[in-house]
Amino acid sequence: MSTTPSDHSVLELPGFPLETGGALAPARLAYQTHGELASDKSNAILLPTWFAGDHTSHEWLIGPGRPLDTDRYFVIVPNLFGNGLSSSPSNTPAPQAGADFPHITMRDNVRAQHALVHGHFGIERLELVIGCSMGAQQTYQWAVSYPDMVARALPFCGSSKTAPHNAVFIEGLRAVLTADPEWRQGRRAPGYAAGLRAFARVYAGWGFSQAFYWNERYRTLGFDSLDDFLVGFWEPNFAGQDTNDLLAMLWTWQHADVGATEGAGGDVVKALGTITARTLAMPAQKDLYFPPEDEAWASGHIPGGDVRVIPGEWGHLTGAGANPDDVEFIGRAVRELLASPGEN
Amino acid sequence: MSTTPSDHSVLELPGFPLETGGALAPARLAYQTHGELASDKSNAILLPTWFAGDHTSHEWLIGPGRPLDTDRYFVIVPNLFGNGLSSSPSNTPAPQAGADFPHITMRDNVRAQHALVHGHFGIERLELVIGCSMGAQQTYQWAVSYPDMVARALPFCGSSKTAPHNAVFIEGLRAVLTADPEWRQGRRAPGYAAGLRAFARVYAGWGFSQAFYWNERYRTLGFDSLDDFLVGFWEPNFAGQDTNDLLAMLWTWQHADVGATEGAGGDVVKALGTITARTLAMPAQKDLYFPPEDEAWASGHIPGGDVRVIPGEWGHLTGAGANPDDVEFIGRAVRELLASPGEN
Repeated sequence: MSTTPSDHSVLELPGFPLETGGALAPARLAYQTHGELASDKSNAILLPTWFAGDHTSHEWLIGPGRPLDTDRYFVIVPNLFGNGLSSSPSNTPAPQAGADFPHITMRDNVRAQHALVHGHFGIERLELVIGCSMGAQQTYQWAVSYPDMVARALPFCGSSKTAPHNAVFIEGLRAVLTADPEWRQGRRAPGYAAGLRAFARVYAGWGFSQAFYWNERYRTLGFDSLDDFLVGFWEPNFAGQDTNDLLAMLWTWQHADVGATEGAGGDVVKALGTITARTLAMPAQKDLYFPPEDEAWASGHIPGGDVRVIPGEWGHLTGAGANPDDVEFIGRAVRELLASPGEN
Repeated sequence: MSTTPSDHSVLELPGFPLETGGALAPARLAYQTHGELASDKSNAILLPTWFAGDHTSHEWLIGPGRPLDTDRYFVIVPNLFGNGLSSSPSNTPAPQAGADFPHITMRDNVRAQHALVHGHFGIERLELVIGCSMGAQQTYQWAVSYPDMVARALPFCGSSKTAPHNAVFIEGLRAVLTADPEWRQGRRAPGYAAGLRAFARVYAGWGFSQAFYWNERYRTLGFDSLDDFLVGFWEPNFAGQDTNDLLAMLWTWQHADVGATEGAGGDVVKALGTITARTLAMPAQKDLYFPPEDEAWASGHIPGGDVRVIPGEWGHLTGAGANPDDVEFIGRAVRELLASPGEN
């Protein structure tokens, strides 16, 4: 969940219509690329970003010799709407600024990314779509919305539809932000210190597993005590965020559901059945809000869908790539999937 | 977590010293009894209460023909300090009112209860100490503080020491309450609506398991939708609470640790090793903040300690007794334990 952006580009999409009505005029899609697109455009990988992160968050997967090997692949990392780099409450002018920013769905995100991948780069087929958490949700949405374009999909620590318990967790986060004394219906952007601190504290319990804390795994992140970890890791992670941006991303997350794709008629099972990508879902064993059950369930409805649980104690933040064992486990799976034939 | 008190009595303890220094003068211990104390005082059971509950919370266990059978047993239910009936920020006069209320430990609670059980009723030996969640923590503390007085112990959905992850969860709850616009360092008692609503929302994600929500078990509680459940079940559960009372109980919970008992020197394993009660710990399978690992670990250090996991999807609120299967499972274990010989 690094929030220090490095160099990135922006694709402007004029008059970008939104699924919930209205439009962004323009939508701005911030993205970064790594490696070089082959002349036949056959080596592209897409890695959408997760909640409160940006295109730098999963750089640990990307680079020469890394699982998303930039000596071979062209890796596109599009930023989630609401993250402060792509169109967001914090960077959109009136009348859509701040609390007036419209609701954005996963399909809006994926459709904008399609405009980047297909319209801008002229890529017909992605070798892989891979993402973590909300990035995994975009991965599922890509596989459903554009089955002909996705050869392989690797969603990790995520789900195809936000489960009810996950939605309750999000409701708690929303309530914390909007209870802030400086909240005032979102009219006091950007950040509200009390609410963001409480938000970070609440998130701390969900982000890692019970066993992570029991076994003091935060020591491997350089913190000597639990208090230091709560203050030194979690508070900075959210302290610089814009509350309206967080709320915008939470809305997108809460409403993630591939079943809402046109043609699926609200039926997530039907939507999953249309996936043709070779799909390997990788939930983390002790993830408290995207538990393995979510992706195991989804995989059962994806033709040839496979699931491989990431073992260990890092909970949801298994997907942050801070634990070498997890990096190794996920990396090996990425290489295996890329070495396998795609399904379309 | 019913908060409607029925008839109860109050034992006043003048000049009650506190472990953290100072004293309550007097301490008031609110309690209710059921059944009749035998002339030889051999039929007493103690059931301490849980967080934000009171002596009515576990009445489903108590009564003629119920597991704590009042045709046979004399059941004493002492209210936790801070719950608004026993000494609490909300009912203690200056200079200890509200935010000035002192910190109370589990050992303070148990010592006051000892004054009730032994000093007031003259009971030398309890047939059973049983409690859920913070009630389970008091149960462990009883078994360590007064081993000669506890024949059997049945802590359920709790722990002998608040685990680090559980403490992180509590830190989140504290942060939510103190971020409330009406908080003002506790000087605006009693309740702060925004903070208590956020508190209820955050709690909702922790109280039940992922599977509980996935399978819409809230329908068995009479709610037709998730939104209705969040508003109709969780908000009233905390809406009437005094924020300082909640914070006082959270402090007690966060610092629960039988290892801090005099003589144990901070060593929870050593403390558990002194337990002579026949102890049956019953964690709930999918409890998110008192996971089965906590009690399984503790049982391994209790001589003859046994652990029986309550199966199912109700998470921590397995201990609320709202699900008939759980009531049956817990009740059977209580009867078995009461039928077995005590250890001292």
